[in-house]
Amino acid sequence: MSAAQKGLPRRPGLFVTFEGPEGAGKSTQIRLLAARLEAGGVAHLLTREPGGTLIGDRLRELVLDSRSRLEAMTEFLIYSASRAQLVHEVIRPALERGQVVVCDRYVDSSYAYQGHGRGLDTAQLRAVSEAATVGLLPQLTVLLDLDPALGLSRAARVNTPDRIEAAGLAFHGRVRQGFLALATAEPGRFLLLDAALQEDALAGRIWEAVQARLPTG
Amino acid sequence: MSAAQKGLPRRPGLFVTFEGPEGAGKSTQIRLLAARLEAGGVAHLLTREPGGTLIGDRLRELVLDSRSRLEAMTEFLIYSASRAQLVHEVIRPALERGQVVVCDRYVDSSYAYQGHGRGLDTAQLRAVSEAATVGLLPQLTVLLDLDPALGLSRAARVNTPDRIEAAGLAFHGRVRQGFLALATAEPGRFLLLDAALQEDALAGRIWEAVQARLPTG
Repeated sequence: MSAAQKGLPRRPGLFVTFEGPEGAGKSTQIRLLAARLEAGGVAHLLTREPGGTLIGDRLRELVLDSRSRLEAMTEFLIYSASRAQLVHEVIRPALERGQVVVCDRYVDSSYAYQGHGRGLDTAQLRAVSEAATVGLLPQLTVLLDLDPALGLSRAARVNTPDRIEAAGLAFHGRVRQGFLALATAEPGRFLLLDAALQEDALAGRIWEAVQARLPTG
Repeated sequence: MSAAQKGLPRRPGLFVTFEGPEGAGKSTQIRLLAARLEAGGVAHLLTREPGGTLIGDRLRELVLDSRSRLEAMTEFLIYSASRAQLVHEVIRPALERGQVVVCDRYVDSSYAYQGHGRGLDTAQLRAVSEAATVGLLPQLTVLLDLDPALGLSRAARVNTPDRIEAAGLAFHGRVRQGFLALATAEPGRFLLLDAALQEDALAGRIWEAVQARLPTG
């Protein structure tokens, strides 16, 4: 008999985010994780930031458009608006249905890119993010760490660099240090992995961490 | 000899905002104030929220277009993003040039509409607004107060107000009370006026308040 049939609250879902620079292999690892969840019959939902909702996709277009001349705070608030809609419309309802939600980027990207990268005040970023997400944090954050020089050259092979990728190596060096500082501060939430490892080895480590946190049915 | 020629910091400008519901006559009064500033040879700049910048105008379109599907917090964060860009790109530079900046809506609209109207947490609204505006507040806020029932009274004479009109009235009633509470809390900043008064009488009261705050040259 399921929890719902017994009239108990359904088991909560699991919220997993992927962080790291462009070119670290987030998309590949998310695809591999989804395949394992699928094979295991685990209900799940994949989404991404910015975007993932109708308004989020339109905000994503706006912010990634290299013709836009955005202040760092404007950029952060647009990401936060997209995030607020995504949490309310997609992530929270899926978690309440008991699903595993896998999100490509979340608040840690803002702390790393707009905080460490662009120098916005951390306390303000946290206050805004708390408002945007109603305090919802992932139970697991996979950080794919990569030397920015390597990541940019990988990404450049695929696409013309967008406005954010074009911001330069010094910027991306600060972003990397930001991600590493976040992982150090919350070792229980973060799984820090060297993105230069083999795809299969990474997928194995990630699956292990997800399985350990899966709600037992 | 001017302050600049003497090597002193230039006199600061004056930041004036207009608040109140649609239909209260903000645009008319802003036009009349601009005419008096023009006639008096006072350098000034008119702008509005949301909008007033390239990105702000695109965000304005977005939010007016998708309002019905937006979470209250998403809507507020989009307004805040537009506000951050407007402050950094337009308002602060104009004030630093010594201009009078007249803005149609500003943070008080968020406090009244998203806070009192839609029930978002006031402390969160203030934390986000502080981040968006770098704490910049107007020296004068003209509040054109209008009973929201007046706007609906014509419709009510024809039909019994339907559910949506009634909900609209309750919402706009909360917004009005929000504006009045803000004005009561900061009597030095707010000029509270009855929007039902004659146009010329209102314009006279507003000009008096602006003149009293104009930087002496």
